Amino acid sequence: MTDATLAAPPEETPLHVVVPASTLRTVVDVLGALVEECRMRFDADGVHVAAMDPATVASVSLDLSPAAFESYDVEERTLGVPLERLDDVLSMASGDDPVQLALDPETRRLTVAVAGLDYTMALVDPEAIRSPPDLAEMEFEYTAAVTLESTALSRSVRAADMVSSHATVGVDADDEAFVVSASGDTDDVRHRLAGDDLLDIDAGEAESLFSVDYLTALERPIPSGSEVTLELGMEIPMALSFEIAAGAGQVEYALSPRIAR
Amino acid sequence: MTDATLAAPPEETPLHVVVPASTLRTVVDVLGALVEECRMRFDADGVHVAAMDPATVASVSLDLSPAAFESYDVEERTLGVPLERLDDVLSMASGDDPVQLALDPETRRLTVAVAGLDYTMALVDPEAIRSPPDLAEMEFEYTAAVTLESTALSRSVRAADMVSSHATVGVDADDEAFVVSASGDTDDVRHRLAGDDLLDIDAGEAESLFSVDYLTALERPIPSGSEVTLELGMEIPMALSFEIAAGAGQVEYALSPRIAR
Amino acid sequence: MTDATLAAPPEETPLHVVVPASTLRTVVDVLGALVEECRMRFDADGVHVAAMDPATVASVSLDLSPAAFESYDVEERTLGVPLERLDDVLSMASGDDPVQLALDPETRRLTVAVAGLDYTMALVDPEAIRSPPDLAEMEFEYTAAVTLESTALSRSVRAADMVSSHATVGVDADDEAFVVSASGDTDDVRHRLAGDDLLDIDAGEAESLFSVDYLTALERPIPSGSEVTLELGMEIPMALSFEIAAGAGQVEYALSPRIAR
Repeated sequence: MTDATLAAPPEETPLHVVVPASTLRTVVDVLGALVEECRMRFDADGVHVAAMDPATVASVSLDLSPAAFESYDVEERTLGVPLERLDDVLSMASGDDPVQLALDPETRRLTVAVAGLDYTMALVDPEAIRSPPDLAEMEFEYTAAVTLESTALSRSVRAADMVSSHATVGVDADDEAFVVSASGDTDDVRHRLAGDDLLDIDAGEAESLFSVDYLTALERPIPSGSEVTLELGMEIPMALSFEIAAGAGQVEYALSPRIAR
Repeated sequence: MTDATLAAPPEETPLHVVVPASTLRTVVDVLGALVEECRMRFDADGVHVAAMDPATVASVSLDLSPAAFESYDVEERTLGVPLERLDDVLSMASGDDPVQLALDPETRRLTVAVAGLDYTMALVDPEAIRSPPDLAEMEFEYTAAVTLESTALSRSVRAADMVSSHATVGVDADDEAFVVSASGDTDDVRHRLAGDDLLDIDAGEAESLFSVDYLTALERPIPSGSEVTLELGMEIPMALSFEIAAGAGQVEYALSPRIAR
Repeated sequence: MTDATLAAPPEETPLHVVVPASTLRTVVDVLGALVEECRMRFDADGVHVAAMDPATVASVSLDLSPAAFESYDVEERTLGVPLERLDDVLSMASGDDPVQLALDPETRRLTVAVAGLDYTMALVDPEAIRSPPDLAEMEFEYTAAVTLESTALSRSVRAADMVSSHATVGVDADDEAFVVSASGDTDDVRHRLAGDDLLDIDAGEAESLFSVDYLTALERPIPSGSEVTLELGMEIPMALSFEIAAGAGQVEYALSPRIAR
C-alpha cells in the first residue's frame, strides 16, 4: 500500500486534527463497548467524552490530551459522533496511518481522511444524545485497589463466564489477593491472583457482585499489554481505569453492582 | 505431505494436461466470480473461456497459453466444466502441487489427479451452457485507461461499499487522478488515486456508475500483487484486465454500467 | 501470563494428580469424539477409559500410564467425567500449563486447578454411564495392517467426503497400497497410498464400507504428526490406534462397517 497524502482540510474549519489510526480505533472501541453514539467535546485540553450505557449500568469517562495527536487545531466544540460508522472508516486504515478529522462549518459534517480516502460523515445532534450523570459527583467509599495486567483480568472474566452470568469480584485483605468467583448450578470457579501475579494491591476487604456480560464488554476493548487499576468496595460500583495512547489518554469505566441473589 | 506421483492417464485420451494447482485455482476463482459452469475450449493455442453471468451484467474472457502448463497434450475439444466441484478437488492440493487433467473418451468424464488423489468428474454438456455474446464485436469508446495495484482497487471498492450499493468510477483528466466515489443516505465517500499511487494513467474524462456487488465479485479473485488495467469511458462498460500464471494467461472482465439514478 | 502456583489439594484426598494441559486436552478430544461423559478409572497402572458412542457404531479404549503425569497419587477409583465442562476449563490453560485434579472426598466433586484458577466440577454418577461391551472379547480376523501419518489419513477422509457419506477403506494386496474410495451420484474419488507414502504395510486383501462422518470424527482428534495404525479386514470393523502423551498413552478406536449398499 502506498502512503497516500492526506487531502487538504477545508480552508476555514473550527476543527482540524490528525491522529494515528490505532489511537482513534482504541477510542472508538472503548466507547463502543457502552454506546452507539456519543458527545465528543474538543477543547484546548484535548478530547473529553462521558457516556452511560442505555441500561444505566455502566459509564465511561475518556480524556485524550493534544499530545495524542499529530496535529491538533480546534475551537471549543462538541460533536455528536456515530461510533459504528467511524469504526467502518477506520477499518480501511492500517496500523498507525494518520487519520485527519476536519469539520465542515457549512454542512456540519465531519470529513475523515485516511490513506487516499475521504469519508464525509453526517454527525448526530449532540443535544439528542443523553447526558450521563456527572461522574465527579458520585463518590464511593472504595476499600481496596488492585492493579493487574489486562490479560489477567480477561482470564478472570472468562473463568466466571464458564459457570454463571454473575461474578463476585473482591479482595481478600488477609491474603492480599484479588479474587473473582462465580457459582453455577453444579460447578464453581474461583480465580485468585496475589503476589507477583498482581502489579500492585492496596488490600482491604471488598466484595461486590457484577454482571459477567458487562465485565466482558468492559475488558474487551482494553489494549493488550495495558495495566488496569480496579477500585473496589463492599456492594458498591467498581472503577476500572487504564491509559491509552501511550499515556496521553485516560479511560475510567464505572460498573454498578448487581443486588446479591 | 509426501509428494505422491500422479496416476498414469488413460492410454488413449484426447486431452492430457498437467498444471500447477495454484494456476488452476486462479482460473476457477476468476470464472467462478460470474458463473457456476463454463465452456472450456482446449486447442493448440491453449485454453479459452468466454462466459457471462446469468444477469448478463458482466462477462469474462480468459486465455491460458500452453506455457502455463507443465505438460499440454490436447486434441481440439470443448468441455463443460462444473467449477465448484473442480474447486472442491483443488482444496485438496497445496501450493504448486501438479494437477493432472485427463479426459476419458469412453465415459466422457474428466479425471483430476493430484497428490495421490484421483477424482473422476462428470462433465456438463457444453451445448447446455449458454454462449456469451461475441465480446470482440462489442467496441466501446474508452476515453481513459488506468493501471493500478490490485490492493488499491480493492480498497476503492471496499470504501464505496461502506455507504452505497453503487459507485461512480472515473478519471479526473485535469488532475490525472483515478476516482471512485459513492453517496449514501447521510454519508459520502471518495477514494482518489494519482501520481505514485497509480502505475500508469492515460487520462481523459471518464465516469460511469457501477454495482458495488459486481465490482466486489470481480476484484476478489484477482491474485494479490497483480497489476490491473481499467479502461473507462462516459456511461459505458468498463474493461478490467490482468495477467495470471506469471504472464502465461490473460483475463478480461467487462462490466456494464448502471443507469445513473 | 505469569506462572501461577497451583492451589494446595484437599488434605486427605483419594486422588491427586498433575498433568500437562496439552495431554489432558488430547484425552478429552479423543473421548469427546464419541461421548459426552465417560467412566474414567484411576489405578496404580494409570488411567483407563472404555466408551462407546450412543449409536454403538464406534468405541474407544484409552490408557494413560502414570509416566504421563507430573504427579500421580491415587487410590483405585472410577470417576464419571463430564467431558465438555473439562474441555471448557482446559480452554483457560495455555500449552503445557500443569493442571491439577483433586477429588474432594466429602463433596465428591473434582477440583481442577490451572494457572491461578480453581474450578470445582460436579461429577456424574459412574453407574449412570453405559458400559461398553468388553472390547477384548471381540476378536476380528484382520487381514491387513497399515501405518501412516495422521495427515495422510485426514486427506483420505476429506477426499471421500467430497462425493459421498460412505467410503470404502481397504488394502490392495497386489500393489501393497492403502486405498480409500467413494462414489457419489456423478463423481468418484479414490485416494491411493503406497511405497514411501506409507510408514508400514502388512498387505492382504481388505475392504469394508464406513461412514465418512464417523471417520471424520475419529481422525480429527488425532494429534498432528502422529503415526496411525489401521487394522483392516473383509467387511469387519477397523481398528485405528495411535500413541498420545509422547508414548505414555495409547488409544484404540474400533469402527463398525456399514452394510454395503
